[in-house]
Amino acid sequence: MALWGGRFSSETRNEVTQYSESISFDQRLFRHDIAGSKAHVKMLAARKIIPAATADAIRAELDRIQKRIESGDFRYDIAMEDIHMHIESALIDALGAEGARVHSARSRNDQVALDIRLYLRDEIDFLLTEIRHFQRALVEQAAANPRAILPGFTHLQHAQVVLFAHHMLAYVEMLDRDAERLSDCRKRINVMPLGSGALAGSTLPIDREMVAAELGFDRVTRNSMDAVADRDFAIELANALAIFAMHTSRLSEDLILWCSQEFDFVELDDAFCTGSSLMPQKKNPDVCELTRGKTARVYGDLTALLTMCKGLPLTYNRDLQEDKVALFDALDTVKMILKVYPPMIETMKIKPERMRAAASDPALMATDLAEKLVELGVPFRSAHHRVGAYVKYCREHGLKLNEASLDQMRETIPEATEEFLTLFDPDASVAKRDITGATGFNQVARQIAYWQERLA
Amino acid sequence: MALWGGRFSSETRNEVTQYSESISFDQRLFRHDIAGSKAHVKMLAARKIIPAATADAIRAELDRIQKRIESGDFRYDIAMEDIHMHIESALIDALGAEGARVHSARSRNDQVALDIRLYLRDEIDFLLTEIRHFQRALVEQAAANPRAILPGFTHLQHAQVVLFAHHMLAYVEMLDRDAERLSDCRKRINVMPLGSGALAGSTLPIDREMVAAELGFDRVTRNSMDAVADRDFAIELANALAIFAMHTSRLSEDLILWCSQEFDFVELDDAFCTGSSLMPQKKNPDVCELTRGKTARVYGDLTALLTMCKGLPLTYNRDLQEDKVALFDALDTVKMILKVYPPMIETMKIKPERMRAAASDPALMATDLAEKLVELGVPFRSAHHRVGAYVKYCREHGLKLNEASLDQMRETIPEATEEFLTLFDPDASVAKRDITGATGFNQVARQIAYWQERLA
Amino acid sequence: MALWGGRFSSETRNEVTQYSESISFDQRLFRHDIAGSKAHVKMLAARKIIPAATADAIRAELDRIQKRIESGDFRYDIAMEDIHMHIESALIDALGAEGARVHSARSRNDQVALDIRLYLRDEIDFLLTEIRHFQRALVEQAAANPRAILPGFTHLQHAQVVLFAHHMLAYVEMLDRDAERLSDCRKRINVMPLGSGALAGSTLPIDREMVAAELGFDRVTRNSMDAVADRDFAIELANALAIFAMHTSRLSEDLILWCSQEFDFVELDDAFCTGSSLMPQKKNPDVCELTRGKTARVYGDLTALLTMCKGLPLTYNRDLQEDKVALFDALDTVKMILKVYPPMIETMKIKPERMRAAASDPALMATDLAEKLVELGVPFRSAHHRVGAYVKYCREHGLKLNEASLDQMRETIPEATEEFLTLFDPDASVAKRDITGATGFNQVARQIAYWQERLA
Amino acid sequence: MALWGGRFSSETRNEVTQYSESISFDQRLFRHDIAGSKAHVKMLAARKIIPAATADAIRAELDRIQKRIESGDFRYDIAMEDIHMHIESALIDALGAEGARVHSARSRNDQVALDIRLYLRDEIDFLLTEIRHFQRALVEQAAANPRAILPGFTHLQHAQVVLFAHHMLAYVEMLDRDAERLSDCRKRINVMPLGSGALAGSTLPIDREMVAAELGFDRVTRNSMDAVADRDFAIELANALAIFAMHTSRLSEDLILWCSQEFDFVELDDAFCTGSSLMPQKKNPDVCELTRGKTARVYGDLTALLTMCKGLPLTYNRDLQEDKVALFDALDTVKMILKVYPPMIETMKIKPERMRAAASDPALMATDLAEKLVELGVPFRSAHHRVGAYVKYCREHGLKLNEASLDQMRETIPEATEEFLTLFDPDASVAKRDITGATGFNQVARQIAYWQERLA
Repeated sequence: MALWGGRFSSETRNEVTQYSESISFDQRLFRHDIAGSKAHVKMLAARKIIPAATADAIRAELDRIQKRIESGDFRYDIAMEDIHMHIESALIDALGAEGARVHSARSRNDQVALDIRLYLRDEIDFLLTEIRHFQRALVEQAAANPRAILPGFTHLQHAQVVLFAHHMLAYVEMLDRDAERLSDCRKRINVMPLGSGALAGSTLPIDREMVAAELGFDRVTRNSMDAVADRDFAIELANALAIFAMHTSRLSEDLILWCSQEFDFVELDDAFCTGSSLMPQKKNPDVCELTRGKTARVYGDLTALLTMCKGLPLTYNRDLQEDKVALFDALDTVKMILKVYPPMIETMKIKPERMRAAASDPALMATDLAEKLVELGVPFRSAHHRVGAYVKYCREHGLKLNEASLDQMRETIPEATEEFLTLFDPDASVAKRDITGATGFNQVARQIAYWQERLA
Repeated sequence: MALWGGRFSSETRNEVTQYSESISFDQRLFRHDIAGSKAHVKMLAARKIIPAATADAIRAELDRIQKRIESGDFRYDIAMEDIHMHIESALIDALGAEGARVHSARSRNDQVALDIRLYLRDEIDFLLTEIRHFQRALVEQAAANPRAILPGFTHLQHAQVVLFAHHMLAYVEMLDRDAERLSDCRKRINVMPLGSGALAGSTLPIDREMVAAELGFDRVTRNSMDAVADRDFAIELANALAIFAMHTSRLSEDLILWCSQEFDFVELDDAFCTGSSLMPQKKNPDVCELTRGKTARVYGDLTALLTMCKGLPLTYNRDLQEDKVALFDALDTVKMILKVYPPMIETMKIKPERMRAAASDPALMATDLAEKLVELGVPFRSAHHRVGAYVKYCREHGLKLNEASLDQMRETIPEATEEFLTLFDPDASVAKRDITGATGFNQVARQIAYWQERLA
Repeated sequence: MALWGGRFSSETRNEVTQYSESISFDQRLFRHDIAGSKAHVKMLAARKIIPAATADAIRAELDRIQKRIESGDFRYDIAMEDIHMHIESALIDALGAEGARVHSARSRNDQVALDIRLYLRDEIDFLLTEIRHFQRALVEQAAANPRAILPGFTHLQHAQVVLFAHHMLAYVEMLDRDAERLSDCRKRINVMPLGSGALAGSTLPIDREMVAAELGFDRVTRNSMDAVADRDFAIELANALAIFAMHTSRLSEDLILWCSQEFDFVELDDAFCTGSSLMPQKKNPDVCELTRGKTARVYGDLTALLTMCKGLPLTYNRDLQEDKVALFDALDTVKMILKVYPPMIETMKIKPERMRAAASDPALMATDLAEKLVELGVPFRSAHHRVGAYVKYCREHGLKLNEASLDQMRETIPEATEEFLTLFDPDASVAKRDITGATGFNQVARQIAYWQERLA
Repeated sequence: MALWGGRFSSETRNEVTQYSESISFDQRLFRHDIAGSKAHVKMLAARKIIPAATADAIRAELDRIQKRIESGDFRYDIAMEDIHMHIESALIDALGAEGARVHSARSRNDQVALDIRLYLRDEIDFLLTEIRHFQRALVEQAAANPRAILPGFTHLQHAQVVLFAHHMLAYVEMLDRDAERLSDCRKRINVMPLGSGALAGSTLPIDREMVAAELGFDRVTRNSMDAVADRDFAIELANALAIFAMHTSRLSEDLILWCSQEFDFVELDDAFCTGSSLMPQKKNPDVCELTRGKTARVYGDLTALLTMCKGLPLTYNRDLQEDKVALFDALDTVKMILKVYPPMIETMKIKPERMRAAASDPALMATDLAEKLVELGVPFRSAHHRVGAYVKYCREHGLKLNEASLDQMRETIPEATEEFLTLFDPDASVAKRDITGATGFNQVARQIAYWQERLA
């Protein structure tokens, strides 16, 4: 019979035990559950709710239980439901009546809220470190290739030339927002729920602020009913992870394109690719594809969390137990991405000559012509029309934009001068984009320096 | 080095192996992979692509491998990626060069498409059986309580009295549509993709129709590129599972309400409930709550599958490997629901006296008054207004609808007769609803008989 | 005061009226609401619940109301909530007490269920026709270009050569499954709910089978509580639409790639592209991109519908009103896709010489070498290894696969003969794939003929 | 021909114009588009890219255009695509060549990024104000009913008694986190993207910092490619709105339960409810139900946004145009909720006597017995078992917990004293929960005071 089984006449059915157990996935919380219990009993003793000797015995035994779990010397049993019951039960096995005091003034509702917050705080700190690594790998690629020029795309069409380094730094920016979002989420996680009891607080004279201080929380929760019902932080975190995964899916898409025979801008190291069981020539960018697929998985986890919480009455409902399945899956997926991407980016070889060949498409410089006209005083919209007409003219005459003579150019761009014929140089085109945030050599060098310093 | 590694210079990195392995979840396909390979080599021999003796040897060895896996005597290694490579590799280990013939005219792309279709066909057949069990449990509850009357709700407000049996049968209808949807999905699954190769078919003279016949498929796929790129069936199945789960979430919501102290219409068996770690009096309908939560999980799986497929170019992309994670999770979740609900429904005790007490709220019979007026020739909308005014009158006078005198009633319903005062009997109200699909005793008895026969 | 306002003491607040109105989106149901009401009153008269003359008057007036709405001579007012109340109210305005009889034995709960089923039946029939048009456009492109060869991709890497026609037909297959799914969904929609009342049926002696026959339904619903609570069909349809949209997102992705300067396999007609406000040279495949984006929108609609239904107790709850917002948006989006894609496909120009140039990459024929070795008796896995080693050899020697001498080839493929050097011809490679579903010329010609006949 | 049409040979097809227009939904950005253009031309003049007189003329004309739009004197035409083209075109119509200078050094890609950020900044500020109103309404209900006691629920089962005021304040906490999340999101929105051009910046010597200062931004974006590709803020905002909506769905669920005949704890004002077309007695909490349904809609919007962004290559792709459809729908929905809930909460009448009757269920005080035993030195887990056994004893003897004699109680709780018999008073039970965040009278009074001060 379960620890809570006093009022029950029959045992839980086996299928139900399997249906409702969470030990298979919440066992990863054991360290945080133990840390929480240690702080709790210290406080219980300080408030004389339990004897100081009991608190000491429990704390010592909790340390032993932690070591047993870490060393694999601990038996899990789904009949014991969850990590909380496993540890309480182990305490009682070891200490008898003294161990049975640990759960005073506590419910699993506030206990799990505490554990998950402690756990997520650690996870976020880990993610923040790993995101910095990832940014560093991107900045290094940028710094190693300061002059590589490739076509920039909008609508997957040649738009304007850009620096490869600028492209890499775009992802550094995205990751930076990811880190910011995680930090903002951490503020809302770092609030201490223990002492909220099942939903109403406790009749025992506990000291919640002491527990909060002991465990490094910023403050205690203000409303016990909210504290046990709240899973906002899980959704907010899952959303931050989903956006991060989305960013990696975009990077992956770029890499998949660049690895295709048609683009052929980069080569991923063999160690990050796999082959085909049928086609001997294949070297596939599997990691990138899997990451797009795993992004979908993280989205699914977010969907599950949002759906789960919708329309639940206050306060705790068992639906919420499923939060961990989704949240842990999202976290694990993102942590795997963070393990694979930094080395993949670091070992990626770029093909600057292939990039430059593509970047020599003179159509990429059409905007430069229009902006040159603006410098000459032509209103922009008229300038755009003239260059558009020039594009059409070249197309109809089977010419590339840099293959027409000045006379030909003047048929549609009367203001054109010799200088116009020189505007098709990709290096010059990049160099001219010399404003904050633009792809010019100077600007990108500044950005690289900025990030190298920030990430040092 | 992997079986496909001929062209590779370096080994796959360890993190990448972990990132890309699927053996941890696709090992459940082993039986279907083996069945597919057995049919494949039989055909290869029939078409003289491999010797008959080789085919026999491979088929015999595949049987041995299956037994080894079933008995736990088989080692999985993520370096071997997936179930297909594990089994091919075991074959080669056992048979040498002869085993190395099995993958002729085959790619993992069409192989996994075959395996998953074989697997899902079995799963659907299992689900169809289990859904019938579930329907039977509901019909039995209905049949066992043919006269229990409770308030029917719209907007969670008392609407009209209905039979408890009618309420149960509403869920039988939902489950029946679930079964229909699964059967429709099965038609689209039962099409044979093997022979599509990686994407283009094979240059070897294979006989796909023979393999289809051997494995009980309705027909072969018509386009090799579609065949390896298609995951429609996974989405369609996940959606059918999501709707099923949604139905169980609605039933669960009804049961949770009925178990509350405020409704108190049913009692679930102790074996299907759990208690509280803090509050000794608690007996919670956890299974029902978890099912609402697990419905969210199945939704998440569907979201993942849809998202994964969006915007993928033809043909196979590695993103698709994640399909199994989501699909298996949805299937496992639904199968667990199907294990728990039939016995929970069977052992549920209803409280007919509590139901009837609630059903005696005379407001539930307000529509009967309006429809009686229609019988007397009053246009319905006017009848509705008069009864509405009567409701307001009673409310203002602190009366229940059956507590006013005839004279009082006539202040707002001039056509009222003595008969009107008798319309507040819930049994009579139910009995009068005697049209197809309505809650009348006769109609519900007919429906019970219909279902008993269909489910026999 | 609303038609239902008999019991209310105060008017609905203005914000609430705006919050809860549905006339802004359900007005599109007017024809089906009127058709339903006409069948309903005909039956009411046949069952003598209302006089025959009343039924005639109501039916005639409903025709007039329909004409008024069609001609724009009808005033909508959110205070009147929904299309049902608007039409009932117009009837009462015109006919007085006789009009007030129309709602006998009916609730808006079963009325809206009827209307939406009638409406969706029509929509599905329209979609089925349009999908056939779409398939025809694809088949025509295939038939017009029977010998165009391009690289087939897996993992966006060159895999094996395929016919452009084969690629087009892959999408024809997908659309065919879409049509099947819609037809299956239609079966479940074509069941008549009217007579279920608010939830419990009616006390009046109506004839539901007569209404079903009148309106062309296959049968009547069997359970009144289920009938008013059921929105399965909306979810099932939204899912079918989501899969359809996903298919178009995949086609769009292929087209976007093919339109890029790097691939350059097709050109979309100017009429289906737009330009840039800044870059004069741009011609963007906007339709394709928007379709990927709109696919996301349809997914959102499906998510909304699933979420909405989760955990609702029986029977009708007002949450369900939002079903139409999501469902109509998904339908409208899909109908717009179906308007744009057939002409875009029809007017698309392919560039067979560009395709063929890409298809001449000899790596695409690596599998042919391996399968040739299988013909010579080499076990497939060994053949794969040899060809893989040959790929590596060529790579290390800076050779394309067709640039090595026979002697060089024999260093890794000892069995190679002169014939091996001829295997790099893309036409021959395609031609050899001559099994059902494969990309060989004969097979694809057969498939084109099959579809031309089916779609004629 | 469109403003960008210089290079095009044929007009956009009509269906494509309809497919790709955004003016039907982005017209709401007109004020922000105009504000952005005014700052832009001021800077262009300051940097001498356009003449000062031109800048003045454009700014004056933009003001006139704004007034025309506000007064309804402005014609929209889908051929003009979006709000940007409409306003540029109106400028050119009015000013000729001078107007044609406005789009210098600007692309619609950075322009729309600017507009949407300006717009969302305003929307968030509005939402923050409205959320404070909503909180105030809840705090007022709490303050007006400081002693109303009702059962607190976990698992929708009676758990422990709580104050109604405490329950209201739980929602105040949730809304506070919503406000925090919106403020955090605002930080990431308040970064200035203009000058990023189409993707690469500009060759013209613009001053982005000046524009940022002019428009009140915190800083400028650091990477032009990221700036035009980024829709993180839309997803982050949609997620914050989804969580807010989820909170209102939970409040709504509580209210729907409380309005049911079985709970009957509150009555919503008639002005916030509607009736039934069939059942004259009905008064339905439609607003609450619709809110659950609308929550699903906001979830759908978030799903659409996430899906849309997944796997997009850099930089701008037209898919992103659909962001506004989803985002505006989510914003509008949430703004409607915020209009309806404060007055609905303010006018809600609670039924304290009904609440107290339910709160008198002595099982609600079972935990108090266990905690009393802890005070007497009994280890908590043993105390829980004894009280559990007492619950079972009472149940088997048909007694409520407060109906047993002391002797009877001692059969399972040997330590019980006379004092135990007094523990069933709900007021005393509430009063004893006197720790931070608990439901005790003192604590709740403190929280009310805290919120009244913060929200003043």
